[in-house]
Amino acid sequence: MSYFDAASSSPLHPVARQALLAALDDGWADPARLYGEGRKARLLLDAAREAAAEAVGCRADELVFTTSGTRAVHTGIAGALAGRRRVGRHLIVSAVEHSSVLHSAEDLVAADGSVTEVPVDRTGAVSARAYGEALRPDTALACLQSANHEVGTAQPVAEVAEVCRAAGVPLLVDAAQSLGWGPVEGAWSLLAASAHKWGGPAGVGLLAVRKGVRFAAQGPVDERESGRSPGFENIPAIVAAAASLRAVRAEAAEEALRLRELTERIRARVPQLVPDVDVVGDPVRRLPGIVTFSCLYVDGETLLHELDRAGFSVSSGSSCTSSTLTPSHVLKAMGVLSEGNVRVSLPPGTTEEDVERFLAVLPGAVAGVREKLGVSTPTPAAVVAEHSLVVDALGKRCPIPVIELAKVIGDVPVGGSVRVLSDDEAARLDIPAWCEMRGQEYVGEEEGYAYVVRRLT
Amino acid sequence: MSYFDAASSSPLHPVARQALLAALDDGWADPARLYGEGRKARLLLDAAREAAAEAVGCRADELVFTTSGTRAVHTGIAGALAGRRRVGRHLIVSAVEHSSVLHSAEDLVAADGSVTEVPVDRTGAVSARAYGEALRPDTALACLQSANHEVGTAQPVAEVAEVCRAAGVPLLVDAAQSLGWGPVEGAWSLLAASAHKWGGPAGVGLLAVRKGVRFAAQGPVDERESGRSPGFENIPAIVAAAASLRAVRAEAAEEALRLRELTERIRARVPQLVPDVDVVGDPVRRLPGIVTFSCLYVDGETLLHELDRAGFSVSSGSSCTSSTLTPSHVLKAMGVLSEGNVRVSLPPGTTEEDVERFLAVLPGAVAGVREKLGVSTPTPAAVVAEHSLVVDALGKRCPIPVIELAKVIGDVPVGGSVRVLSDDEAARLDIPAWCEMRGQEYVGEEEGYAYVVRRLT
Repeated sequence: MSYFDAASSSPLHPVARQALLAALDDGWADPARLYGEGRKARLLLDAAREAAAEAVGCRADELVFTTSGTRAVHTGIAGALAGRRRVGRHLIVSAVEHSSVLHSAEDLVAADGSVTEVPVDRTGAVSARAYGEALRPDTALACLQSANHEVGTAQPVAEVAEVCRAAGVPLLVDAAQSLGWGPVEGAWSLLAASAHKWGGPAGVGLLAVRKGVRFAAQGPVDERESGRSPGFENIPAIVAAAASLRAVRAEAAEEALRLRELTERIRARVPQLVPDVDVVGDPVRRLPGIVTFSCLYVDGETLLHELDRAGFSVSSGSSCTSSTLTPSHVLKAMGVLSEGNVRVSLPPGTTEEDVERFLAVLPGAVAGVREKLGVSTPTPAAVVAEHSLVVDALGKRCPIPVIELAKVIGDVPVGGSVRVLSDDEAARLDIPAWCEMRGQEYVGEEEGYAYVVRRLT
Repeated sequence: MSYFDAASSSPLHPVARQALLAALDDGWADPARLYGEGRKARLLLDAAREAAAEAVGCRADELVFTTSGTRAVHTGIAGALAGRRRVGRHLIVSAVEHSSVLHSAEDLVAADGSVTEVPVDRTGAVSARAYGEALRPDTALACLQSANHEVGTAQPVAEVAEVCRAAGVPLLVDAAQSLGWGPVEGAWSLLAASAHKWGGPAGVGLLAVRKGVRFAAQGPVDERESGRSPGFENIPAIVAAAASLRAVRAEAAEEALRLRELTERIRARVPQLVPDVDVVGDPVRRLPGIVTFSCLYVDGETLLHELDRAGFSVSSGSSCTSSTLTPSHVLKAMGVLSEGNVRVSLPPGTTEEDVERFLAVLPGAVAGVREKLGVSTPTPAAVVAEHSLVVDALGKRCPIPVIELAKVIGDVPVGGSVRVLSDDEAARLDIPAWCEMRGQEYVGEEEGYAYVVRRLT
């Protein structure tokens, strides 16, 4: 198997494993206790905090360990909002944040706060100007990821931090995807990250809160981790997390170059090898290991199964791979195609051979799925009605509505139009994206379920 | 070193270590993913849930894994309170609950809810009658530990559950100290526990919520653990937790007998070996491995250091061993002496020799501390004022006020009284406890810092 889903979780780094084993023997006792075992545990915890703080670029007393990156984000946002309650209850987030940030935002809205979602361009990037425009007198906090987890696009964190700093608003950076590659630049105020993304164990997140940032931890707390992360510390995992962060950092510069070359190869070759493909995300300002593309007329779940059978583990933002049958909010915000979406995220150590094998397998896998979906056969669903073609794809799921549209477009005279009826949430994103890829005009949506397309070529 | 603080945290059980190592290789991927590594992780997680549910005595779909016992308690209480918000915002807890329960209660009070603390008797036990009396029409939830973490006293959970059931109020049981020994009897509604107490790894708690119990998880959630515990699952640790629970249960009956004999030996011998000692907690209805006693005229922190030097790791509920300089809330609620408090909690596998060595070392350690404190020398602090003796111990910390009292009591004529001036929080508990132990009369407190004692014998 080739595991190409490092952005979701990385296998344990050998250094993490070694550190974990050693700390299982020495770090199981309560670090708050005065006896030998407790003091030993405390020393391990303190050393891990020093190491992690150095990698983050903050003081040790600014950093606490949480039980996951998600918890670090939840705790950071809730604490920063509460700390600035007098200023107001307005939160700024980008439209492409990790779900942990968006769930925190929903929580705020449910508690009568307000949220501004800053839009992104087609590469998935925000602009500092847009953050500046979103700032209000009652803005308590702004959040921005260092780089996007689905398409790899790096965000202009330093510029956004500067805009926020000038307005006196703290910026929380979700550095989950990038911390293994290097510290986050710029004058951020809070930072959250997750160890299992950099080859550390699950169960460890970290939250840094700069001195001077108003912060009031919410919910029941205890005396552990400066009152910011209740519950008995998982010291063996924390030790392993800090050790592996240091280890991946030592290899980061070289490994980043290598993976960037491999993902660049995928970016360039996939459109040559597979027809009707859209590679998304910023081609330059991006994480080294992530490349994402979407394949027209492909059912994402079936494609994932095909690739899994061929020995490749990847993930997808297609609607059919989510439990809610809605496409990824990231692809939606970018306005790009979501059907047949594939995210390849290479773990450190991925070889050129692995990538070449993937490129060899992909075209056949996509073609197989398209064949099953009958992409090249004429459609029975199209009916000519009142000078306009109507495709009735009601009750059919992605990628069928787009496939039906592609089948009939040849029957539409140039300048004429076709209405696609669809109650599938993905169609709202994928039909305009198809038009853009195909050079056709997307006229608009009627009555919430009819999508009008005019043939231009 | 002999580690006698298992109630705080247990070293990793060999089975836990083995399971953890195996699951590090197979359980690091995201169990929500469709590919091979994800399916493998999902299988491990499902199997661990089945095993844990069997040990708890609930259905697998009633149990979620949290990141600590503390989180299980916080989540359980917040979710149950929110689920019954329409009924009211009244919570019942015992006065001797773990701090995680009491912190949740404080959180409710801060949010304009109300809390009734059910008192305990001198053994630390609540009565079902007292829970019955605390029930109100607006009671949303009641909480009770299965057994106390500081003195080992078992609580009448089944009876309290019955009283709550009759009133239609759910009961949350904090089973942290007892789950390794066996399932909790009775019709409880929610149950929380912590793996590192039974020899599992840190970072794993469990929360069971019976079907039919109204529950609404609070704070931002995600799709993991039925929406009750957000953040990436720590599957290797969860697997190790479930495996070790099964392993300790297999040894529980035999080991309970053995440890009970050893703690019984400590209970019986300590008062013979050490003068002026009070063994606390229920002598019969109790956990097998815990025994707690308090030594008059002893500074708890110094005693802990002496025992640590002699090779024994124990903990204490004395005020001088807490960061807030207040005695343990458990000892306070029981109304027993807190000075020179020692909790011995034996981990499975403790040998008779360990215990005998402890009993050999303890008398000298206590005597050494008393000698340093000058317990047998006459006091210069006592002055005769207006027909009544006054001991000015203002500004002096536990155990000095009680030592000063003991020094002058011989100078008081039988029937006469002495006033001890003390601004130490521990005096409020320890002076009445000393009177009870010494057969003298505690008359009462004056102006918040003067404690009046009448000599009877």
